[in-house]
This record gives sequence, structure tokens and C-alpha cells, in this order.
Amino acid sequence: MLSALDLARRVESGELTPARLVELCADAIAEREAEIGAFVTLDLDGARRTAAPPAGKDAPKVAAKDLPLRGLPVGLKDIVDSADLPTEYGSPIYAGHRPRADASIAALVRRAGGNVIGKTVTAEFAHTDPGKTRNPVKPSHTPGGSSSGSAAAVAAGFVPVAIGSQTGGSTVRPASYCGIAGYKPSFGLLPTVGMKCVSWHLDTVGLFAAGIADVAFAAAAIAGRDLRVDRSPPASPRIAVLRAQPWPQASADMQAALDMAARAASGAMARVKDIQLPPVVAAAFRAHTTIHGYEAARSFAFEYDRHRDKLGKSMRELIETGMKVTVDAYDDARRTASRARQALAEMMSDCDVILTPSAPGAAPEGLRSTGNSTFNRLWTLMGIPCINVPGLADDSGLPLGMQVIGRFGADRATLEAALFIESALARRK
Amino acid sequence: MLSALDLARRVESGELTPARLVELCADAIAEREAEIGAFVTLDLDGARRTAAPPAGKDAPKVAAKDLPLRGLPVGLKDIVDSADLPTEYGSPIYAGHRPRADASIAALVRRAGGNVIGKTVTAEFAHTDPGKTRNPVKPSHTPGGSSSGSAAAVAAGFVPVAIGSQTGGSTVRPASYCGIAGYKPSFGLLPTVGMKCVSWHLDTVGLFAAGIADVAFAAAAIAGRDLRVDRSPPASPRIAVLRAQPWPQASADMQAALDMAARAASGAMARVKDIQLPPVVAAAFRAHTTIHGYEAARSFAFEYDRHRDKLGKSMRELIETGMKVTVDAYDDARRTASRARQALAEMMSDCDVILTPSAPGAAPEGLRSTGNSTFNRLWTLMGIPCINVPGLADDSGLPLGMQVIGRFGADRATLEAALFIESALARRK
Repeated sequence: MLSALDLARRVESGELTPARLVELCADAIAEREAEIGAFVTLDLDGARRTAAPPAGKDAPKVAAKDLPLRGLPVGLKDIVDSADLPTEYGSPIYAGHRPRADASIAALVRRAGGNVIGKTVTAEFAHTDPGKTRNPVKPSHTPGGSSSGSAAAVAAGFVPVAIGSQTGGSTVRPASYCGIAGYKPSFGLLPTVGMKCVSWHLDTVGLFAAGIADVAFAAAAIAGRDLRVDRSPPASPRIAVLRAQPWPQASADMQAALDMAARAASGAMARVKDIQLPPVVAAAFRAHTTIHGYEAARSFAFEYDRHRDKLGKSMRELIETGMKVTVDAYDDARRTASRARQALAEMMSDCDVILTPSAPGAAPEGLRSTGNSTFNRLWTLMGIPCINVPGLADDSGLPLGMQVIGRFGADRATLEAALFIESALARRK
Repeated sequence: MLSALDLARRVESGELTPARLVELCADAIAEREAEIGAFVTLDLDGARRTAAPPAGKDAPKVAAKDLPLRGLPVGLKDIVDSADLPTEYGSPIYAGHRPRADASIAALVRRAGGNVIGKTVTAEFAHTDPGKTRNPVKPSHTPGGSSSGSAAAVAAGFVPVAIGSQTGGSTVRPASYCGIAGYKPSFGLLPTVGMKCVSWHLDTVGLFAAGIADVAFAAAAIAGRDLRVDRSPPASPRIAVLRAQPWPQASADMQAALDMAARAASGAMARVKDIQLPPVVAAAFRAHTTIHGYEAARSFAFEYDRHRDKLGKSMRELIETGMKVTVDAYDDARRTASRARQALAEMMSDCDVILTPSAPGAAPEGLRSTGNSTFNRLWTLMGIPCINVPGLADDSGLPLGMQVIGRFGADRATLEAALFIESALARRK
């Protein structure tokens, strides 16, 4: 895998150039993209032009190598509008669609000195009908979804940074399945403007990179916020371990991995205790389904009314289920979510993060399902930062991700705690 | 003006047809559109086809006349994406732009049986650089903005219903200036998906119609919510009159109009008392500017980075001011807004609505400014329902609108209180 932080430092020191970074990616892509299928659209020539812009009066005032992202190649999930490349949302309805403008996150990536090299595969409309992508760790298994291509592109070493999104579990789950860092920031920290909307109360931009320090570095550069965690050792966090979920339990392997992560953190001098969720927070898990469906039925009103026959099975189900949700049920679900956010904030007043599995288990075999988002939905609805910490695996080598969940707006502390746990797991080996 | 409720009832009874409604609008448009300039794009032929669809197997399963909006012609602000008509956002950057999909609100209008007859003039990107539209009450004056064309189209009798938006005061102010009902619902009640985004914490869909019962009828049909207020007389509301603002005061005419409205409501047996805003709510007024700028600088990152020379003066100022807002100032502003929402909810626990002016005064003369949103910004940030009640005017006949502001989610009660005040003012004459 390509470490964003390491590559950026080498550009900063003059050891590498943005143009050389593109070739590093191009080599990795040439070797494995045919097998993995992470991209819908690749634009290596465009990336080469961006990396080595013409001299003279057309040259940009600030070279990419002097900007925070140092010219790092970036993959954009294909629900992010881009003016230079087609954007198809994983749907035949939008075959060949070329938006007039970049989404805000695409423009912010470029503004920070990122070099967009292509659009990555998304499940249809960021839901669950899968694309072609395979898991780089074991290609007979799903990479997870819906940000399938972004997670796989980072795991396969095609790009050091990729942008995804999360409405249910579309960032944390594929990061867990692919064994990389995935970060869903606090709701609203990064703009979703110009990303295909599923649910306006849930959609969140997500980021992928090799490790926690890498994803924090990329997020800091793109958001223009103090989120880096690589400059000093992380403080010892207070960790609340959540073992019993109000939804179907994790696999035995995953439960064992959680025990191992809790022990490693405790061994590294973190304060670790077990917690249980208050009933209103558990109720909010069901509220996610109500809000998701109700809003998707409205977000996709055009597609449903005009192109119903081109919608996949699970998108139709999502929309049709959402059309049956009454406004009273929707309003109730929003009130439940609001109460749950308060209860959770109170519960977390004496801890820094919650530690719990990122997914029910390792990536399922086959490409027909992208796996299950039960371990992620509640936290997405709560709007709080969630990070997948890589480092553990089952006996067959498939990754088992640990989910670190912080307080709203405390993204830096959450990233720091995630780094602490990642380091503790690394030392264990 | 065309009453949406009256026309819908006449279609329901068989006295009118959707096709006849289009011709009523076409006649009014033929008479005055050249002078008023409410539309960017008119599609009367498309509206005629929608109103009288072909018979046979292509015929829609449910005729427009049997749907809630009964085939009523509707104008859409030109920041609302439409697949059948160009959508230019009031900007030369988007000349001739044809979106691939309808915005959710456009699809919901059609789903409810509305007949979109055209796109209405917006100030550039729903900000303040004005379009061509004149005030139908007095064409030497501004209609207000940024939903200039939608307000003018209703006031001129071109359409019974129009869709606008509000980020600062873009619905309530033009409704006040044009002497019609304008309704900004609770934040999130109607989807902004597919509308050009300025600020994701502020942008709200707005509706225009002749009177309060009309706008409530249209909102009920489009939102699928129990918002109609025409079926029984409104309950007598508890009204809190806000005379002293933490921003520059209203004109003498407007202050006299507020007195008159408060007296009329009191005379009609409403409980009326004066209030003052708690300091944190007043502080939130300044927070609006911070949030608006910070988010606009990100929403328009593509336009600023790629087409800066095609941006109007006030858009550039908004973006450049927003680029200077620090993340700390932005986070502080959001926390202030959050505290203010709580303080306001407590303050309003013993009243149904706040009554205050909709604008500093009547529509200013000339077309170079769309007027001032100081009386609206705070309430937009609070996310609570705001309604312009028409019925009063200055000596020259220019309308002076009253703003009725309700509790979050209590949209029906707010519409009912607005109807109560509208009726009280009507009886006064």
C-alpha cells in the first residue's frame, strides 16, 4: 500500500515529484486493475498533465508540490460530480453523464493539491447493488460497499488517498473488509454538495488511506483543519468497549478480535471499560432505517418516476419501502435520533471513544453482496466520527476492522485514539 | 392574483380543467410578462401537453386533475434543477445548462399534480446580484430577492403557486415586497436535493401563493403533510410581538404596520404580548453571516476556482469573505446557533408565534438592489417556520408584510396563526 504521509514527506523533501507519484500509481494499476476493477474511469494522462503543468503564463501560481496534499493521486467515488470525467452514480440511468461542475469535495481535493486520477466504482447510487470490484486481499471476496472502488484502490496500492461516502456503513465497512483506514468525519465537517444525495440527514463524505496517520493527514489537508496525528505520540485514551449490540452479534472471529484490541489498548496503558447502550440509543438504530427510506424515496423521485425500469432491485426496494413510511413515523424517527444524540453525549462524557467491531465479521465470499451495515448505521445517524482501525485478521488472512467512535466535533481526539489502538495492535505482533 | 385553493376547487368540481388553467396563466403572462420579467424560461406548450396528455396507452394512470395539486401551473426558481428545461442559476457560467435530472422538489411538484410552466428569475446563485424582474405592484421598484421571479409571477397573477428558496431572506422578503404569502417551512421539511447549494445549514425550499390558505394548500399537497388551514376557522393564537431587533430598525411605516397588525390580532381575541430576544439569540444573528460565508466559499469552490471572472461582484465578496472565516469561527458560530435554538424554544414555550416585520420597510425603488435580509437571517438559521402575511401597505400602495414565526416542526400551527392574522387584517378594512 502507498502511505500518503510517507509519499507527501518525500515530495516535500524533493525525493519524489508529483509526476513520479502518478507513475507509481500507474505501475500498480497496470499490474492489478484488470483483476480488481476499482475504477469506472481512469484518467492517467489527465493526471500526468496536472502533475507536470505547462510552464509559462498558463502555469499555476502555486505548484501542487507546495500545496498540503503535495500532488498525491486521489480516487473519487463515482457519486462525486466531476466536470472533467464522467459521473455515472453506478446507474445505467446516468451512462456517460458529464456534470457541469465539480462537487465541492472534488474542488477541495484539487485546491489542497490532490491529483484526481479517476472515478472509483460505487454500488448503484451508493446503496447495495454491487459493482465489479473485488477485494484486493482475496479477490474471491467482496471489498464491501458502497464505496467499493475507493477502498479497493487504496488496499491494492493504486492510490494513497480515496474519497468515499457513508449513509449506512459505506466507508467503515469496506475499510474493514479491505484492511485499511477509513474515516467518516462528524456530520457536516466536509461538504456533500455535488455528491448524489441519498439521505440528507445521513450522507457523509468518507476518506480512505493506508493507515490512521495517513487518513488524518489527508483529512487535515482537505478540510483545512488541525486533524494531523503524526507529529507527536497519541495521548492515552479512555476507551469504552461495546460488546453487546442491539442488533445481530458479530462473528466469533470478530468478537475475539475485539477482545484482542481491548487487551492491546489496555496493555498500552489506555483506560478501558465495558459499556452498554441506553435504550433510546438502541431505538435510534431502527430510526436509521425509517429516515434512510423516507429521504431516499424523495431524493430519487425523478429516477423512480421516470426511469423505474432501470433501477436495481435493492434501490427499488429502498425507495418503495420509503414511500410507505408515514410523515408521522419519519418525524418520530427524527425526534428519537435527536434524543439519542443527547443520551450518547452524556454517556460519553467520561470516555474519549467507543470501541466496537466495524462489521459483523470479515468480508463475505462472492461479489453478489457488499456485506452488512448493521454495525455502522446507528453511528452514522448520530453524526459522530467513526474510524476503521486496520491491523487484525482471521486465520485465512481476511481483515477484521475495529471501529473507533468519538464525540461529535471531537474528530482530532478520535483520530488520535484510533492511532493509539493501531499502534498498540502493531506492537503486539 | 390567482388563488390556488379556489382554482383547485373549481377543477375538483369540474368547472375548470387543467388545460383551462394553463390558458388563464398564458393570458396573464401575455399581458404583463414583457414588463415584469418573471421568467427565465417559459414552456407554455409543454404545460399544454402536460395538461391535456394524449389518450391511449401513453396516457398517465392518474390524471393531474385527480392529484392533490389538480394540475395547477407552478413556476420553479431557476436554481431548481429541471431535466426538461434549462437551469442557469442566474449565472453566465451555466448559460444553457440542462441538468440530467429534476431536483426532488420539482419531481414532488409533478408527483402532486403540479404543472411546471417555467423557470423563474433568481438573483445570481440565489444571492443578491439581481435579475431583470420588476415588482408587479409598482414596476419601478424591486420585487425583492433572491426568489424575485417566483414572487413576481404570483403577484402578477401569472401562476397560482411558485417555488423559491431561502438562505437569508429570499422567500419572506420578496413575498413582503410583492404583497403575497410566502412560506419558509421548518428546515428539512422539503428536500433541497438538486437545488444549487449555497449553504447546507441554511438553504430551505420556500413557497409562494396569493394568500395564506393558498400557500398552506400547496405545501400540504407537495409535502404530503397535514398543513391545510382552509377547512375550519383558525384557533386564536398566542402571539409574541417583537418590536426591538438586535439589528437596524424597521422604517416608521413598517413599525406602524406592526402596531396595526398586533392591534388587529388582539381585537380578534388573540393573546398578544411584547417580547425581547435573549442575548444568545441576538448573537446568533451574527453567526448567520459566518456560517453563510464559510459554507458558500466551499459550495462554490468549483465556480470560484474555474470561472472567477464570470462571478458577479457580491458573489465574489460572499465567497472571498467566507474564505477568510477560520474553522474555529465557523465551529463557534454553529455552537452559538445550537444554543440559540434551545433558548428560543424555551422562550416560545408559552406562545405559538412571534410577530415581527418581514423586511425593514416597503420594496426599495430601483432594480439595482433586491433589498435587505436583516429581518430574516436569524430565523432562517434557527430553522423554524416563517411566513409572510400580506394585507398592509404604505400610502403609496407598496406592501408591508408581517412575519409570523413558529416553533420548529409546528408548521401547521404557524400557518394557522398566519391565517388568523391575515383574516384579522382583512376584517379591519
